[in-house]
Amino acid sequence: MKPSIPKGTRDFSPMEMAKRNYIFDTIKQVYQLYGFQQIETPAMETLGTLMGKYGEEGDKLLFKVLNSGDYLSKVTPEELAERNSLRLAAKLCEKGLRYDLTVPFARYVVMHREELQLPFKRYQMQPVWRADRPQKGRYREFWQFDGDIVGSDSLLNEVELMQIVDTVFSRFGVRVQIKINNRKILTGIAEVIGAAEKIVDITVAIDKLDKIGLDNVNQELREDGLSDEQIEKLQPIISLEGTNDEKLNTIAEVLATSETGLKGVEETRFILDTLKTLGLKNEIQLDLTLARGLNYYTGAIFEVKALDVQIGSITGGGRYDNLTGIFGMPGISGVGISFGVDRIFDVLNALDCYPKDATNGTQLLFINFGEKETAYCLPSVAKAREAGIHTEIFPDSTKMKKQMSYANAKQIPFVALAGENEMAADKLTLKNMETGEQSLITIDEIIKTILA
Amino acid sequence: MKPSIPKGTRDFSPMEMAKRNYIFDTIKQVYQLYGFQQIETPAMETLGTLMGKYGEEGDKLLFKVLNSGDYLSKVTPEELAERNSLRLAAKLCEKGLRYDLTVPFARYVVMHREELQLPFKRYQMQPVWRADRPQKGRYREFWQFDGDIVGSDSLLNEVELMQIVDTVFSRFGVRVQIKINNRKILTGIAEVIGAAEKIVDITVAIDKLDKIGLDNVNQELREDGLSDEQIEKLQPIISLEGTNDEKLNTIAEVLATSETGLKGVEETRFILDTLKTLGLKNEIQLDLTLARGLNYYTGAIFEVKALDVQIGSITGGGRYDNLTGIFGMPGISGVGISFGVDRIFDVLNALDCYPKDATNGTQLLFINFGEKETAYCLPSVAKAREAGIHTEIFPDSTKMKKQMSYANAKQIPFVALAGENEMAADKLTLKNMETGEQSLITIDEIIKTILA
Repeated sequence: MKPSIPKGTRDFSPMEMAKRNYIFDTIKQVYQLYGFQQIETPAMETLGTLMGKYGEEGDKLLFKVLNSGDYLSKVTPEELAERNSLRLAAKLCEKGLRYDLTVPFARYVVMHREELQLPFKRYQMQPVWRADRPQKGRYREFWQFDGDIVGSDSLLNEVELMQIVDTVFSRFGVRVQIKINNRKILTGIAEVIGAAEKIVDITVAIDKLDKIGLDNVNQELREDGLSDEQIEKLQPIISLEGTNDEKLNTIAEVLATSETGLKGVEETRFILDTLKTLGLKNEIQLDLTLARGLNYYTGAIFEVKALDVQIGSITGGGRYDNLTGIFGMPGISGVGISFGVDRIFDVLNALDCYPKDATNGTQLLFINFGEKETAYCLPSVAKAREAGIHTEIFPDSTKMKKQMSYANAKQIPFVALAGENEMAADKLTLKNMETGEQSLITIDEIIKTILA
Repeated sequence: MKPSIPKGTRDFSPMEMAKRNYIFDTIKQVYQLYGFQQIETPAMETLGTLMGKYGEEGDKLLFKVLNSGDYLSKVTPEELAERNSLRLAAKLCEKGLRYDLTVPFARYVVMHREELQLPFKRYQMQPVWRADRPQKGRYREFWQFDGDIVGSDSLLNEVELMQIVDTVFSRFGVRVQIKINNRKILTGIAEVIGAAEKIVDITVAIDKLDKIGLDNVNQELREDGLSDEQIEKLQPIISLEGTNDEKLNTIAEVLATSETGLKGVEETRFILDTLKTLGLKNEIQLDLTLARGLNYYTGAIFEVKALDVQIGSITGGGRYDNLTGIFGMPGISGVGISFGVDRIFDVLNALDCYPKDATNGTQLLFINFGEKETAYCLPSVAKAREAGIHTEIFPDSTKMKKQMSYANAKQIPFVALAGENEMAADKLTLKNMETGEQSLITIDEIIKTILA
């Protein structure tokens, strides 16, 4: 029997884990610098919590967990005979696997509101599961790393999230472009061209500008039922160029008659102006074609792209004004970002920008020549560990060659050994695996050498 | 609609996460000190990997995941009508949730053997799921933190695992007793009393000595079909007292005719003697009544108990000689331990032995008096963060009282504020929340004060 793992899932090797931990730790440290606190929620949520939150397509992509025990006891023969997969699933299963971190977070806030001090700034890094068709870079089990602030509608939160993004990618050594837009501006645009009800169609079309070009966007708008006049009015907005300030000035004129639109301009201006005084390391660009999950966001929208690697958005987020409303707790505004850890992993691999010590491996290996030599070495092994050095002693007294190839495979930089001579001298031979240099020294000197 | 979470699962609050992270990080650091490397495996495994590995009871406790899409398409009307829960589940589901970390690790070793350098020392900390009846201290989602060495039958591995256990609990500040036994000794005992085939019954009975007392143990042995003579022969073993050396000497005499038994004595002697030269901080005790999952272990068995808290075993493990055999790869010996993280969490809570800085919270909060004051503060906020200080600025300019109670709730030790006077002086007022002391100083002085 040849074992396998479910398609779309992955094992992570020590080297992959070391790199992923570096990514997780870096993001975590920055969140903590901004006063965010970690929470975790269960892998399984009730289907009542999950269903209907991600659209019809999302409901289908939920992994459902079969009720334990006699899961058929509540199912009538008629229901079975009907063979309706979706309806029957609701009888067979009452739990599903987490689909994202946002809905569980909303559920968390509602269930724990009594103990929460608002504004609540939380980060959460956990896997999520989707029964999507697996393909390159798309998995059925993947990781999200979300940060959200709920219970405050201050735009300072948007400012801080942009600072967090900027700091994280600076620490990674990855050059990014941060794109920002505002749902209220999009609403305003739809209003002033007299197509408020078509806002979704319009933004879906505009969102494709990069991929399909202006002519095709206009064609799509026509197919969506926009008049030539309306499309004409949209042109200066779609093709808007210039600095962020220039764009904002232009758009403020266009949106002069839309209260909502002007509010969006004002919000965006505050965010960009404040960030200007703080001096981000990466460019932040106003992009009116940025849409992202419109049904959801109500204010600022952001997205991050890597400048030196061809890959989709690696981080995104925005302001939502009624996330907890679905669980009966209205009036809580929130804003958040989600780091796409799997894509960031790909980007850091492509640019090879992991620090050397990220792998955190063994620093010193003691060779095993047999029982007597091992007994001689063990106190030194313990001493090295007490000094904080990651130390191994090869457990079996096999051929020297095998032990050395173990050291090479694990990229261990120092090897220590003791035979008759070393034991007589109460010392050890230390070999620097990079230079090949050998020296007969005491364990204290070895520790000093390695920690130097 | 009032949201809830599946029974037996938990949300973890920021404070709980901080404590859990302290536990995970401490164990992780010790594993790394010994050259262990982290891996992760998917939450879902194929049912082919999981089924039949945990006994009949275990199969029932597996959470099974409904096939996605039209999961009924492969089920005949007859199979549905039969209403056999177990048989039908095999048709409806081909994946299940991880039940422990050991079987996925065996599967990992087999699937990745080409890339592994043996001996392979891995640690893994991930949740596992069991459809057990939830009760106090028993959850349906809980965490395991396993360390294993495979591909080496050297007893040095057992020695190092005991050192790891000793170091971990020393770092926690928790006094423990480490118990050790050896499956070969148990086999030897069954052999010399002429009841080799009754080894499971014997160890199950002896294992209960602490709970039910000697008389009841003997009664149970009689019920298991042991003769009075056999039970008589067992008495010196069950009631064995004295130092580890004394116990080993006695048992060696008893087992004089059992080759396997003597091998077990020799192995135990080596482990204990070597540990004696290394000087553990906690007591290690030979306990012949220690059995633990007999079908599984083939050599040393260990278990750890907290001395100052009444709770079951908090860590356990042992040597297994054929873990990967179930996946078609025989001859790989391994030895491992599993830290029971949820129980360790309970122990550390009971003894209140978390270090003060374990929570890693916000160190400095800037009060928000309005737009002008905030603009004045923001560069100082950035400066504090650059210095590595966990810093927040309250996002909304609400009442001072609300902001101060936020600081109190999050136990933030320092609060900074700036009004007309501070801005005129190009300084800030720093309030020490513990002493109540206030001083008008520069941001550089604030940073120095907090980092001091």
